[in-house]
Amino acid sequence: MIEAGLGFKTEPWLVREATLDLGILAQSESIFALANGHLGLRGNLDEGEPYGLPGTYLNGVHELRPLPYAEAGFGYPESGQTCINVTNGKVLRLLVDDEPFDVRYGTLESHERVLDLRAGTLRREVVWVSPAGQRIRVTSVRLVSFTQRAVAAIEYQVEALGESARIVVQSELVANEPIPLPENDPRVAAALEAPLQSEDHALRGATAVLVHRTERSGLRVAAAMDHIVEGPDSTDTVSECDPDIARVAITAVLQPGERLRIVKMLAYGWSSVRSRQALRDQVAAALTAARHTRWTGLLDEQRRFLDTYWDRTAVELDGDPEIEQAARFGLFHVLQASARAEGRAIPAKGLTGTGYDGHAFWDTETFVLPVLTSSLPEAARDALRWRHSILPAARERAAALGHAGAAFPWRTIDGQECSGYWPAGTAAFHINADIADAVVRYVDATDDEVFEAAEGLELLVETARLWCSLGHRDRHGRFRISGVTGPDEYSALADDNVYTNLMAQQNLRAAADAAERYLAESGRLGVDEEERTTWQAAAEAMYVPWDAELAVHPQAELFTSHQVWDFENTGPDQYPLFLHFPYFDLYRRQVVKQADLVLAMQLRDDAFTEEQKARNFAYYEALTVRDSSLSGITQAVLAAELGHLDLAYDYLAEVVQMDLHDLAHNTANGLHMASLAGAWTVLVAGFGGLRARAGRPAFAPRLPNGISRLAFNLWYRRRNLCVTATPGQAHYELKAGEPLTFFHYGEEALATVDEPVKLAIPARPARPRPSQPYGREPVRRIPPG
Amino acid sequence: MIEAGLGFKTEPWLVREATLDLGILAQSESIFALANGHLGLRGNLDEGEPYGLPGTYLNGVHELRPLPYAEAGFGYPESGQTCINVTNGKVLRLLVDDEPFDVRYGTLESHERVLDLRAGTLRREVVWVSPAGQRIRVTSVRLVSFTQRAVAAIEYQVEALGESARIVVQSELVANEPIPLPENDPRVAAALEAPLQSEDHALRGATAVLVHRTERSGLRVAAAMDHIVEGPDSTDTVSECDPDIARVAITAVLQPGERLRIVKMLAYGWSSVRSRQALRDQVAAALTAARHTRWTGLLDEQRRFLDTYWDRTAVELDGDPEIEQAARFGLFHVLQASARAEGRAIPAKGLTGTGYDGHAFWDTETFVLPVLTSSLPEAARDALRWRHSILPAARERAAALGHAGAAFPWRTIDGQECSGYWPAGTAAFHINADIADAVVRYVDATDDEVFEAAEGLELLVETARLWCSLGHRDRHGRFRISGVTGPDEYSALADDNVYTNLMAQQNLRAAADAAERYLAESGRLGVDEEERTTWQAAAEAMYVPWDAELAVHPQAELFTSHQVWDFENTGPDQYPLFLHFPYFDLYRRQVVKQADLVLAMQLRDDAFTEEQKARNFAYYEALTVRDSSLSGITQAVLAAELGHLDLAYDYLAEVVQMDLHDLAHNTANGLHMASLAGAWTVLVAGFGGLRARAGRPAFAPRLPNGISRLAFNLWYRRRNLCVTATPGQAHYELKAGEPLTFFHYGEEALATVDEPVKLAIPARPARPRPSQPYGREPVRRIPPG
Repeated sequence: MIEAGLGFKTEPWLVREATLDLGILAQSESIFALANGHLGLRGNLDEGEPYGLPGTYLNGVHELRPLPYAEAGFGYPESGQTCINVTNGKVLRLLVDDEPFDVRYGTLESHERVLDLRAGTLRREVVWVSPAGQRIRVTSVRLVSFTQRAVAAIEYQVEALGESARIVVQSELVANEPIPLPENDPRVAAALEAPLQSEDHALRGATAVLVHRTERSGLRVAAAMDHIVEGPDSTDTVSECDPDIARVAITAVLQPGERLRIVKMLAYGWSSVRSRQALRDQVAAALTAARHTRWTGLLDEQRRFLDTYWDRTAVELDGDPEIEQAARFGLFHVLQASARAEGRAIPAKGLTGTGYDGHAFWDTETFVLPVLTSSLPEAARDALRWRHSILPAARERAAALGHAGAAFPWRTIDGQECSGYWPAGTAAFHINADIADAVVRYVDATDDEVFEAAEGLELLVETARLWCSLGHRDRHGRFRISGVTGPDEYSALADDNVYTNLMAQQNLRAAADAAERYLAESGRLGVDEEERTTWQAAAEAMYVPWDAELAVHPQAELFTSHQVWDFENTGPDQYPLFLHFPYFDLYRRQVVKQADLVLAMQLRDDAFTEEQKARNFAYYEALTVRDSSLSGITQAVLAAELGHLDLAYDYLAEVVQMDLHDLAHNTANGLHMASLAGAWTVLVAGFGGLRARAGRPAFAPRLPNGISRLAFNLWYRRRNLCVTATPGQAHYELKAGEPLTFFHYGEEALATVDEPVKLAIPARPARPRPSQPYGREPVRRIPPG
Repeated sequence: MIEAGLGFKTEPWLVREATLDLGILAQSESIFALANGHLGLRGNLDEGEPYGLPGTYLNGVHELRPLPYAEAGFGYPESGQTCINVTNGKVLRLLVDDEPFDVRYGTLESHERVLDLRAGTLRREVVWVSPAGQRIRVTSVRLVSFTQRAVAAIEYQVEALGESARIVVQSELVANEPIPLPENDPRVAAALEAPLQSEDHALRGATAVLVHRTERSGLRVAAAMDHIVEGPDSTDTVSECDPDIARVAITAVLQPGERLRIVKMLAYGWSSVRSRQALRDQVAAALTAARHTRWTGLLDEQRRFLDTYWDRTAVELDGDPEIEQAARFGLFHVLQASARAEGRAIPAKGLTGTGYDGHAFWDTETFVLPVLTSSLPEAARDALRWRHSILPAARERAAALGHAGAAFPWRTIDGQECSGYWPAGTAAFHINADIADAVVRYVDATDDEVFEAAEGLELLVETARLWCSLGHRDRHGRFRISGVTGPDEYSALADDNVYTNLMAQQNLRAAADAAERYLAESGRLGVDEEERTTWQAAAEAMYVPWDAELAVHPQAELFTSHQVWDFENTGPDQYPLFLHFPYFDLYRRQVVKQADLVLAMQLRDDAFTEEQKARNFAYYEALTVRDSSLSGITQAVLAAELGHLDLAYDYLAEVVQMDLHDLAHNTANGLHMASLAGAWTVLVAGFGGLRARAGRPAFAPRLPNGISRLAFNLWYRRRNLCVTATPGQAHYELKAGEPLTFFHYGEEALATVDEPVKLAIPARPARPRPSQPYGREPVRRIPPG
């Protein structure tokens, strides 16, 4: 399945593009996107055109659109949310002797863009000869500040390389710029065509501000820009401002070797409640702060912020520099999606594109938060606080569906259910247990009692109530959950999905446990001893189906009695299957889109014996087609645990290449945050063997062929633990914090700052490599060395 | 559940409305609709206004409309079909001394409308005093001819009762008259707002013709009218014609006691291929023939046609005249929906309204055709020929879904799948076995080898191929059908639905049997011995789940392990449940919308022991809420079989009152053909005990309390058999045809024309009356005597 990459160069901390390929412009815009979790800028060229998809996003800013149904039903959401392209402040148009700088004209002598993972910047350097023969160098450096969340800045320089050149730079704020719209539904296109209605626009010198409001969702957005200009004495600045465009035009005549340097500072803000005036002042204040920090100050702060992050999150992989780089690239984008999201969601595509309409799914809790929990726990906490903030909507949804507790939306921006296909949306209740799992994992890794008492407890309580309401006791007293959808979207509305039941069991136990530890707080939530006992009892009585004949767990009741998909007669052009076969037929066969039972074995590894894991893994490997980008991560982790290290390595390569090689052919619409986080997960939970064990992390490191050393840092309960694995040995070094008890292959050990621990890696019985469906084997990873 | 009736009078052969209630105008328009299976006129008032829903329908004439999806999927149909209101020829506006006759103004001194089930006419007689005090009598008689399928006619008379009156009658053809449109989807409304585009309009004397074409579906519709006028010498006629309206105005001054009499002849035609000219000529020819027959000739033909029908279909019920009348009313409307449908479908609402968009469903084969098979077998054959004619579309649909054979659409007008909700549409594959069942039933009842060899065989073969493709052998060799939806729409996508599996089994056997009997014909369809053996083997290996613990058949695998719906906490205002609860929650509980397993026990009564039937019936009675109008019919039949005669009687009353009492609150949109046919089914299959038994019908008559005699006629293999049941005895009389062997309570008997057979009805062990869900018990039927 691995295809040729997009051509980016492999360097330890840089993603470098050495030539401009307009055929992959949209993909490179996603890969070079800059964001801080609050504000995101796609890697569009400074001059605005050509583009694949112009994009400037503010986390949470969306417009509503109708969700139509051929045949409506009770409880179907009627209004969806779509993230919108807000006012574009990236634009710096350039005229060279009255010819516009456009890479499609003239001659592009050299081109380079570099995403710097330690500096947190996107650099560009271009030498261009205009159609009239004027030769110039354009250099820009762009950042979206991690330390000043409202702020982005661009240093833009033009140098005349040939003769004297008259240069005009038009720096703009543009609202409602035209973007490609969906063709299939005219009403959706209408809702998104010009989503911003002007409320205010103002100009003072080289400072401009535009304030807009969305029509249906009623959100107010302000964008402001300011400029510091350095150029020859003749340099002149003229400004103008209209409701949808503000323009600062800087004119200079450059002698050969002379430069025009412009630092453009941008500030953004939005609110559903704050007034036009308040929002104007807010972005003005942010601009003032940024100006005060100055360009070099912004650069310094950016690097310091990243230094801390990389210190906690370091990953080194000797033997495969491409994967090492890709893993860091992934960690960088996970940071960009989350660092300053604060009260908002972490969307599936971060702030890098409009894919999935900018919605957040269960991916966040299950695939992204484990990374953040171990590297930037504040961001993980903030993401869970966002979940807590949408509890009112989740309670309303549960009530509308006739159930107790809270039912979190399958996909959303602001908390309302936006899924228009309920068998794989509404019915995928596992998202509630996934959120609870993220709470448990976060609290375990941080011991953050403040969060636990204030928000974590309530999330656990309300989701536990949902499970009690969704499940029932059968005539034998077993607790069963009928008619729901697990992670595998090629099955739906099944009874007793093992993943769902086991995750619900953990949810119920965690709620009972937390409620008992926080008696006063849980009492205020209406929890009494009877309710706690009910949760415990439901968890103890949880039914987990088992196919005794095959000696495997069926993914759900009856799953193993279904016909196995006819893989032999399914061609490579028929994947992903859901684009070529009807759902009813996928649902009734044994074919797995993405790890489901196998994910249960990762997240509830306590619920399976080693023998069950091995048999289950082999069984589901033969059925799993990986039509979801989430799947390979989990398959890699379990493959590593079961000793299929080369298979795990193959999956790892696929995971890290999801966007850098555009494997799913949709990187143009934004990056896959779960895959980007997944590289870390495969390295740390897969080859490192990390599992959560109630305050004492467990490791079982083991390396695939070709990798001579894996090292990663973990932030765990205010400790910085560095784990280094070589083929025969593991090395645990505590870099900061109190002594830490941990497990190495099930054996307790203690790491202290003074005394690193070296432990041998035990031998492991070999198992035959499991097979995948015909044509769906991962490409064998041959380390480049 | 039985509510007050709509106020129609009970007379053996008449449905009489003695006062005009504008609050139920739309309902009365449905009840007084006239049709012949080709052309349908709602019972709108002659003068056009006021109306509930104006309606003139041509079977098959439809417009296309987009089917939108919030989230699209492979194989979802993108275009739906909706029957449209074609050119209205019923309109006869009346001016009395320059004041329009409108029942909302002036004084309606008397009003009567009578649907005459033997004459096949709708009569109206009104005495009205205009606001200015002019008193007139208006009498109209309307018919849609059974013998001349393109023709309808109206005799319209005005009499001056007071002073001399100047009368103008405007007789019209009106295209694109405004109708109430759906509010929820602007695109659907746009598609249907003015569906007819003028192609031609012409006038000659009192004859006018309008030709139109639908925009998207490209169907051409022609309507023509002619007039015979009798009045005082001064009577004058003026005509005019525009693209969307033709008007013949007849003016007369009537002295007291004088009359103006107008006979309006209407002719309709439509085609997707014939030219404008051909269609014009076609309706002109139909008008010529009608004129030649004259009004009295049309009345005579109509009555003779009905005499034959009632002779074959007579139903008498001593002790409950209301049900007797309602049963005849039902049989009349079934005839109206089907008699001349010929190459077209029998829609769920007949030609009485736009409910269900004018679509045909499985109701036709399972609920309507049994009646027609025993009364007007040509109509049953024509309906099955229509199915045969859409085989190409059904084959394409099967191929698109990745399956062999033919997959008939869940709902359609012209053969294309129009269901926009696939879990209860596409996945309800049982419709294919239902069609096969109708073929088997028709052939059994008629021995029609011409049909069997030409069309029946191919229907059986292609549906058998679908089942082979849909099912699979499990590891124990059992043939299983996973993930489909049975008749009960409160379950979906279940494994091994008993109804589906048993009906598929019959389908496979019938196909193998017919293919063997028609070796040459089946050979031409590509059937060889291997395929026949495969069908037989699949039928023999068919898996039928059984819950040994409860000793009942689960409706489908796992059904009996689901939570029972909380009926006690469901209020009467929460029914029908699907309007108040989400599908996912209905699907995961034990709650039954409509008979499913119970229907299997009726149609495959050979597959159950008596003990199983009794236990199953009691089990499912307690779960069945009858949110579908189809359910009560089947429940009544099984209740009668199992000796719960009073319960069957209660259900019968509910069935016959579906439209006459507007029980489902949607009679306004058209009548429920299945319920209308259901009355016959309950009387004949329920209290008469009729079951098909390979050429020898089986009876087991038994009457509920209060009914002293039930008699019904059956048309069976060119024989007219009259069955009469009294409390202790059954009487079988062959009125025409060769001797007939039949079963009476399992004992063989022979009826000949000369020798009626009298047989005693054996005693039956009493069983306790089963209970229904809380609040869903049928109203106890107390016979009016």
